[in-house]
Amino acid sequence: MEQEQPDITQYELNKEFLDRLQQAVQEQDEAFIRQSLDGVNSADISTILYELDTEGCKWVFNLMPVEKGAEILTELDEDVRRDFVKSFEPEELVPYIEEMDSDDAVDVLKEQPVRRREEVIARLTDREQSKYIVDLLHYEEDVAGGLMAKELIKANINWTVTQTIEEIRRQAENVSKIYSVYVVNDEDILLGKVSLKRMLLARAGTKIADLYDDEVISVQTFMDEEEVAQIMRKYDLDAVPVVNVQNKLVGRITIDDVVDVITEQAEEERQLMSGISEDVEETDSVWRISRARLPWLVIGMAGGLVAATFLGNFEQDIEVIPALAFFMPLVTATGGNVGIQSSSIILQSLANPSVFSESVGRRLLKVLLVALLNGLLLAAFLLLVVTLMGYESQLVLVVSIALFNVVLLASFMGTVTPLVLDKFNINPALASGPFITTVNDILGLGVYFTVAHLLYNI
Amino acid sequence: MEQEQPDITQYELNKEFLDRLQQAVQEQDEAFIRQSLDGVNSADISTILYELDTEGCKWVFNLMPVEKGAEILTELDEDVRRDFVKSFEPEELVPYIEEMDSDDAVDVLKEQPVRRREEVIARLTDREQSKYIVDLLHYEEDVAGGLMAKELIKANINWTVTQTIEEIRRQAENVSKIYSVYVVNDEDILLGKVSLKRMLLARAGTKIADLYDDEVISVQTFMDEEEVAQIMRKYDLDAVPVVNVQNKLVGRITIDDVVDVITEQAEEERQLMSGISEDVEETDSVWRISRARLPWLVIGMAGGLVAATFLGNFEQDIEVIPALAFFMPLVTATGGNVGIQSSSIILQSLANPSVFSESVGRRLLKVLLVALLNGLLLAAFLLLVVTLMGYESQLVLVVSIALFNVVLLASFMGTVTPLVLDKFNINPALASGPFITTVNDILGLGVYFTVAHLLYNI
Repeated sequence: MEQEQPDITQYELNKEFLDRLQQAVQEQDEAFIRQSLDGVNSADISTILYELDTEGCKWVFNLMPVEKGAEILTELDEDVRRDFVKSFEPEELVPYIEEMDSDDAVDVLKEQPVRRREEVIARLTDREQSKYIVDLLHYEEDVAGGLMAKELIKANINWTVTQTIEEIRRQAENVSKIYSVYVVNDEDILLGKVSLKRMLLARAGTKIADLYDDEVISVQTFMDEEEVAQIMRKYDLDAVPVVNVQNKLVGRITIDDVVDVITEQAEEERQLMSGISEDVEETDSVWRISRARLPWLVIGMAGGLVAATFLGNFEQDIEVIPALAFFMPLVTATGGNVGIQSSSIILQSLANPSVFSESVGRRLLKVLLVALLNGLLLAAFLLLVVTLMGYESQLVLVVSIALFNVVLLASFMGTVTPLVLDKFNINPALASGPFITTVNDILGLGVYFTVAHLLYNI
Repeated sequence: MEQEQPDITQYELNKEFLDRLQQAVQEQDEAFIRQSLDGVNSADISTILYELDTEGCKWVFNLMPVEKGAEILTELDEDVRRDFVKSFEPEELVPYIEEMDSDDAVDVLKEQPVRRREEVIARLTDREQSKYIVDLLHYEEDVAGGLMAKELIKANINWTVTQTIEEIRRQAENVSKIYSVYVVNDEDILLGKVSLKRMLLARAGTKIADLYDDEVISVQTFMDEEEVAQIMRKYDLDAVPVVNVQNKLVGRITIDDVVDVITEQAEEERQLMSGISEDVEETDSVWRISRARLPWLVIGMAGGLVAATFLGNFEQDIEVIPALAFFMPLVTATGGNVGIQSSSIILQSLANPSVFSESVGRRLLKVLLVALLNGLLLAAFLLLVVTLMGYESQLVLVVSIALFNVVLLASFMGTVTPLVLDKFNINPALASGPFITTVNDILGLGVYFTVAHLLYNI
């Protein structure tokens, strides 16, 4: 959706301005609000609305022109918007929906209960738009069909430049950013594209057939959004046409939507890697934040309790050689680090799949070699240092041998877990989080005390 | 740089095709290479080159038309390109540089030793381009000036649409993607922009002054690349003009470059969070991968050794109550998880800075509240479970009290560390990695055994 460009950019949006604004809301000072928010970018207005209470929001929102309001709605965070829009009567919502591109309209409507959704769609005056929306509602959110907008400029291959410019004029207000004009035949089959630049430089009479570029990258409606993002990134596309199985042109995905996909992926991955189970921000309520953090903490503790029970079997060993306990943190920490490192490398390959990926066998072999190399180096390092620290040679041996095995085991776990999760369509980033560390803690201690038990044959 | 759009997209680039290609390289079968790579997107050709040995690469590369070769060079990974380009004589490189946009040319030249760089620039025939390149070489890589290209279309506010179209025609081959025409006055001060769409729909005689949009978001040359990315993302911009301190228009940043910035950020963050110290991929050599992983593993082990020495002071306690050792993993694991969670939430706020951010004081208060809440809940949970596991009440008390304090401490560490690192312009993601876990392990054990020592007053 087109962005009105603000003369006051976000830097002027400071606390003072916000305070004055909140005061104005208190005093219902319409004049001030109108004048001070005039020309401010809708993205900035949405950040301001976050700072107001619900009816404050609603009041300010209603002072905005409809077109602006529609932009603001598209800018709002999903969860904020869901509740905010709930406060609208269906007929109140209609004018804003009518101002939106089909993809944005669908995003807003999908958040609402089916009944209200239908009520709004039924009231839309623009038949074409409601057809668009109903069509888009069928697609999963995370595939190309769920990302695309129906609004685009297409030209029949038999048209002239003049006819095409006429079409652009007709569609001008529906399609805010054009990028390219897509060329189709009478059956709407995608044949190619013409950049606006070429149209601008071509003579009016020129036939599109003589102008268009027949090498166009397109994606299919069912393609996964992450794959769409990869393709647009790889080929530096600012828009990509979407086709159905018969290669009919059905929509268009623009880069701004893909940028959001990429950013959301990164944030989701970070949360999984750090064991946060909901999409929380620092600004959320204390209760929401702690609730999002508890699950993995409890799971981690459960792991700790399993470890405790397991260690119970070695009470005697620890009694005889308390020094065994001293190196437990070293063993668990190294296991954890190795595991996270391994899984993170797999994560990266999963994020940027190579066209010519090696066989799983060869990949595991490589992991094994790296693990052997690092394991040996670290064990040797440890052997040396712990000896210098003056511990008895038997303990030194136990610690070093255990560590070597822990490195091997953790590498294996860290490599296999994300691959398995990915197979089952679970986000593999989960494997770089508390999960793998907990497992590695237990396995590591298992190895450590087994080795100790054997070497000391207590 | 403009992407030729392939009719065979990446899906056809499979192992079989690669094998046939490699064979053709063996047999120096020029005809096959030329014909099979004709019309293939340069991004795809670059992925193919990764699979060939150095002289194989060079040989195939030399079969490509110069324009294509320039595209391929811009597509290659920095480290691969650096070595590949080394094999060029300066005069060999010149034609490819001359085909590139100034920003891409600078990226390639910056990787080469200053001397070769100068030799190439000296040989450039296009004076304007060499001026551009010399100018861009001054900027840091990670600021707007280092991201921007000098190529752009600008129109004087006094021009007509016709004059502007003439300018576009003149610049057509230098500026592959236009997006908007930037409007300046006689002093080159940025006044606004006109979208191509508007130009296309306007009558030829129309004055730019009557057509242009004076609300344009611009960035300054010294702005940090991450801030540029945030702005383009927030306002859904596909290109942003870059101005100097006098607000003179000096360049333009396009969305494709920013998409790369965003992706690289995410990857760098993942590597820091998982304690990998170099930019490695699964496809890198065994030696490179293990070298990238060793540093943090060693640091982690060093931490483990500190912990071991520290625990040495409590040998007696462990001897008397070996059960104390059983709960060490639980304490360290929970400390680690809490720390990572806390720092990850801070990371998110640092990545998406709010315009109206709360004071550090209030933020820390919130963190404290969350920590108190989770600490109490977890400690209570532990108290219950460990009692049920049949451990003596004193140990249960020690473990629970210790855990509560560990949660508080780890939350504090996890919150403060990234904020401090950020202050010193170190990537705060470092704080979500092995670093914070190692520190928390030691602190956690410290708390645990101090509590034990006091309660048992051994």
